[in-house]
Amino acid sequence: MSANIPVIESIMSANDQIAMGNRAKLDSAKVLGVNMMASPGAGKTSLIERTIKALQPELKLGVIDGDVASSIDADRAAAAGAAAVQINTGGACHLDAIMLQNGLAQMDLQVMDLLLVENVGNLICPSGFQLGTHYSVLIASIPEGDDKPYKYPGMYKGVDALIINKTDLLPYIDFDTDYFRQGVEILNPGLITFPVSCKTGEGLDAWFAWLQEKAAFAWG
Amino acid sequence: MSANIPVIESIMSANDQIAMGNRAKLDSAKVLGVNMMASPGAGKTSLIERTIKALQPELKLGVIDGDVASSIDADRAAAAGAAAVQINTGGACHLDAIMLQNGLAQMDLQVMDLLLVENVGNLICPSGFQLGTHYSVLIASIPEGDDKPYKYPGMYKGVDALIINKTDLLPYIDFDTDYFRQGVEILNPGLITFPVSCKTGEGLDAWFAWLQEKAAFAWG
Repeated sequence: MSANIPVIESIMSANDQIAMGNRAKLDSAKVLGVNMMASPGAGKTSLIERTIKALQPELKLGVIDGDVASSIDADRAAAAGAAAVQINTGGACHLDAIMLQNGLAQMDLQVMDLLLVENVGNLICPSGFQLGTHYSVLIASIPEGDDKPYKYPGMYKGVDALIINKTDLLPYIDFDTDYFRQGVEILNPGLITFPVSCKTGEGLDAWFAWLQEKAAFAWG
Repeated sequence: MSANIPVIESIMSANDQIAMGNRAKLDSAKVLGVNMMASPGAGKTSLIERTIKALQPELKLGVIDGDVASSIDADRAAAAGAAAVQINTGGACHLDAIMLQNGLAQMDLQVMDLLLVENVGNLICPSGFQLGTHYSVLIASIPEGDDKPYKYPGMYKGVDALIINKTDLLPYIDFDTDYFRQGVEILNPGLITFPVSCKTGEGLDAWFAWLQEKAAFAWG
């Protein structure tokens, strides 16, 4: 290779560059960003409602909701008391960093401590796109079945915490917890896991404590 | 525009052209193809198992299973007695016509009456890709929640039949059937709907009868 030819190494995708900008914006406002991903109907919105009601007013929450269509989720987050923005992806199966950038531009981050980003309901596409949030959380649910880690490994590999929702339905569903946990452990060893029921409230305190701890220690 | 310049109108995508070839192949072998789509964990595989056991040996069934990873679903279909092929999409969030073409090449269509294509678990991406099958069926499930038609309109618009699975869980879940059906009716007026439980077997006979009727009348 000639020494005179400039070589540009493109080490980041455009999405990742914008994600880095989103992260810087969150950091400078001291807002902890959490990307919440799940299959359709796993209970992302119910969990977010519960979280808003439990953590406010000690922590001020914002929610950015991604959906193909409708504003059902942002309406519910706003009704629960959070600053909420709905992003309709117009068919796209995931949020990307530009969508989050546009969402952040609509929010007053100075009065916020914790931003929950509710991604599009999908176990495949969202895992491929960095948003710039600090943590990624996957919400699984009992009725989805115990084989999901084996069938959607990319999603289970990339997250920092796992919530297993709808534990109240365990008596009515064939769900082999050992088989499920084994699949998770292969993909993401030692992953912190919170079995919860957003219906009964069981197990949610541990999730709230995890969020509070992360928010408290984020900026030293 | 000059009369001398040839204008090529690309009226079909490459995917649609291959889908047309798949359809011709199914038609010439007199195999009815059904594209089965659903959210992860809605019960596609359980429904297919039930269908194989109910319709064989009067109808000979084949199953092509699409998943990001694993062969869990094809193993289950084969164990239930169908000719089965697993397609791993390697990350892609849907099947496309080329994948089905490759799957069909692995099957003996001459000894088959009905081919069930189990798409990747996803309420967004699969609706955008024609495969060449004769019918598209969506499997919804009670635990997913009653707001799904409003949030995933593209999927609900494009199907020929709707199965509502896991009706056995209705006593334990807040699911407003009227709200759900209203959303479906707006998007897909008059859509034929089968409320079923693959666990108890309730409602499945109507679904089996629909398939049998379609298979019987497909080639006159």
